[in-house]
Amino acid sequence: MKFSERVQEMQFSPIRRFNPMAIKAEESGKKVYHLNIGQPDVETPDCFMDAIRAYQAEVIKYAESGGITDLQDAVIDYYKLYGIDFERSDMIVTNGGSEALTMAFLTLVNPGEEVLLAEPFYTNYHTFLTSAGGKIVPITTKAEDGFSYATREQIEPLITDKTRVICCISPGNPTGNVLTLDEMRLICEIAKEHDLFVIADEVYREFAYDDREVTSFGMLPEYADRVIIIDSVSKRFSACGARIGLLLSKNKEFMSMAMKIAQARLCVSTVDQIGSAGLFKLPTSYYDEVKKEYCGRRDVVYEEMMKIPGVVCQKPGGSFYMTVKLPVENVEDFLVFLLEEFEDNGESVMFAPAEGFYATPGLGKDEIRIAYVLNQADMRRGAELIRLGIEAYNKKLGK
Amino acid sequence: MKFSERVQEMQFSPIRRFNPMAIKAEESGKKVYHLNIGQPDVETPDCFMDAIRAYQAEVIKYAESGGITDLQDAVIDYYKLYGIDFERSDMIVTNGGSEALTMAFLTLVNPGEEVLLAEPFYTNYHTFLTSAGGKIVPITTKAEDGFSYATREQIEPLITDKTRVICCISPGNPTGNVLTLDEMRLICEIAKEHDLFVIADEVYREFAYDDREVTSFGMLPEYADRVIIIDSVSKRFSACGARIGLLLSKNKEFMSMAMKIAQARLCVSTVDQIGSAGLFKLPTSYYDEVKKEYCGRRDVVYEEMMKIPGVVCQKPGGSFYMTVKLPVENVEDFLVFLLEEFEDNGESVMFAPAEGFYATPGLGKDEIRIAYVLNQADMRRGAELIRLGIEAYNKKLGK
Repeated sequence: MKFSERVQEMQFSPIRRFNPMAIKAEESGKKVYHLNIGQPDVETPDCFMDAIRAYQAEVIKYAESGGITDLQDAVIDYYKLYGIDFERSDMIVTNGGSEALTMAFLTLVNPGEEVLLAEPFYTNYHTFLTSAGGKIVPITTKAEDGFSYATREQIEPLITDKTRVICCISPGNPTGNVLTLDEMRLICEIAKEHDLFVIADEVYREFAYDDREVTSFGMLPEYADRVIIIDSVSKRFSACGARIGLLLSKNKEFMSMAMKIAQARLCVSTVDQIGSAGLFKLPTSYYDEVKKEYCGRRDVVYEEMMKIPGVVCQKPGGSFYMTVKLPVENVEDFLVFLLEEFEDNGESVMFAPAEGFYATPGLGKDEIRIAYVLNQADMRRGAELIRLGIEAYNKKLGK
Repeated sequence: MKFSERVQEMQFSPIRRFNPMAIKAEESGKKVYHLNIGQPDVETPDCFMDAIRAYQAEVIKYAESGGITDLQDAVIDYYKLYGIDFERSDMIVTNGGSEALTMAFLTLVNPGEEVLLAEPFYTNYHTFLTSAGGKIVPITTKAEDGFSYATREQIEPLITDKTRVICCISPGNPTGNVLTLDEMRLICEIAKEHDLFVIADEVYREFAYDDREVTSFGMLPEYADRVIIIDSVSKRFSACGARIGLLLSKNKEFMSMAMKIAQARLCVSTVDQIGSAGLFKLPTSYYDEVKKEYCGRRDVVYEEMMKIPGVVCQKPGGSFYMTVKLPVENVEDFLVFLLEEFEDNGESVMFAPAEGFYATPGLGKDEIRIAYVLNQADMRRGAELIRLGIEAYNKKLGK
């Protein structure tokens, strides 16, 4: 029996691929520090479950396809913090940022058309775009340059008559690269010149460190008609299991088209929407606290990484990931070594090999993504285990 | 700026299209009986919110992509009631039946390929299949025949070298048609002869009335490798806002392919899964009670419909819909009349015009779908208002 070409083309999640090996290591008694997935240990604010527990209804009914008004209004107020004006009709509440991205691609991209996206990129973009029959054209970036890509020289030569969208993940997963508002403006300017849409995945918006300001493509009203924002409660509020995302745009025609897809799938979880409305009403001090926490974790990991001779990594500006070039030829082989052979005091570590985050074959073989989602002590120990692991691995290889 | 061809091809929900008119009527003080959408007034069992309220977790984490094991195990036990053996790896928990259908189409259908589906059908199939670039080839059925379609003569001539799937909604939305196990066997036999998959949408499984037994394509183990079952908590447990569906199959390769899509969108709402695990553990007496309730509602509506001269409708065997041919030329025009002009003691009624449930242009213009989702007294009054409305409408037209 035959399956569709698209599904055969799709990958199994490269982030989850080494899980069985980790489970085996853990079953044998080894403690494994999981720096491989973006599942933070930060507590979900109580208001989420409190609002759900207080919900009284005899019938758990369909919500409106665009979302419940209480959540929509909380989102509107949240965006006002950054001077961005959205109305209810500018948003569709989605099943996580994942569904928002899928809807955007289905609405904008015909089979065979192209989307520009800086590589390395969040690997599931592959699957979302393949569902729509589209193709990622990577803007290749490098660890040596801090994975920057927002220049005319890097972007413009890749635009063809098949290009429909420039996609930007900022703050970046897996790189931690944060676009400045000037860089966002340049990208919009290029998009306008070539009549493209900009899909701005800003689910890590507040996680911009040091002297960086929070930036958003929504802060550029002069380009609002071609900007589509992807948002989510998962990371900002440490509520990954809530599956509440947002598709936002001031382009009324786009929203109307996307609403056809939203109506067909009826609506998003009523209770998760009720809980999430509370999240968006949290005081801004919440963002400050969380940002401080992640920034501290980043500093610890970066410091430990810099102790490894031959490592290449610029201090990342945001999100809770960093992509690091290691002094090993094949990080997947190294990861297997860490899980199956290595231990230090009964402990080992796991990261995401970066190859799956690249569209260009052969790139990323010596790079890893670290998610700094654990507390500082655990992050320091995890990073240390990478260093100790490299020493042991090189010894084994006779280097 | 251009949008994809697929999204331009998609319809706005024909079920929700007349909502603004109804809202206007209600704002003017008219009471409108909503027989137009499948949102039951039956109470969601308390165990749903009870399980969620009892859930204690510091972090609302990502669930496994295939679903939480507590829910999976409850589903396994539920299917055992009907002698159907599923394992955890045979299922993916989805964002409602909607996502399960979308995943199935994305996995099986290439652009330009065909899916057989009896018309009238649940209208959102249009959008789900269009997302995958596929095409519905309708098996046209008639009110006069009770919308039956499970014969070799009706199905086989429609099969081409582009056909990939036979889709069956049983009990049927919008027709109420229930397939017997013999009919299911025949459909599987045809599918086998032509190497097709069967997608069985059985979200109304227990709602089979009179002397009809509960049937499922899962009861035919000899065809298990080509059967894909779509399930949902929405209707069975009156929990439409819970957005918990299921994609089930014993075909390991199919499940493995579909899992690529499931992994990319990460997972389904954690709290909704926790609540739904409780639902699947309800005693079978729950199904008996709910079935009795809906069966009583059906009887009332059918009785009232039969009072209308010229109406065509066979008593439907299941689900909570019936499709009725009215003695009016254009039911959309009639619906506008009901909402804008007609009233009886300050009351009017709303149904879903059936044209949107047909793929063949021109069909269904004189048919409506009634959802018997309200209590018996309201259903009787709603049906009566249709009858009184027809009298007034014909008078207006001078008939």
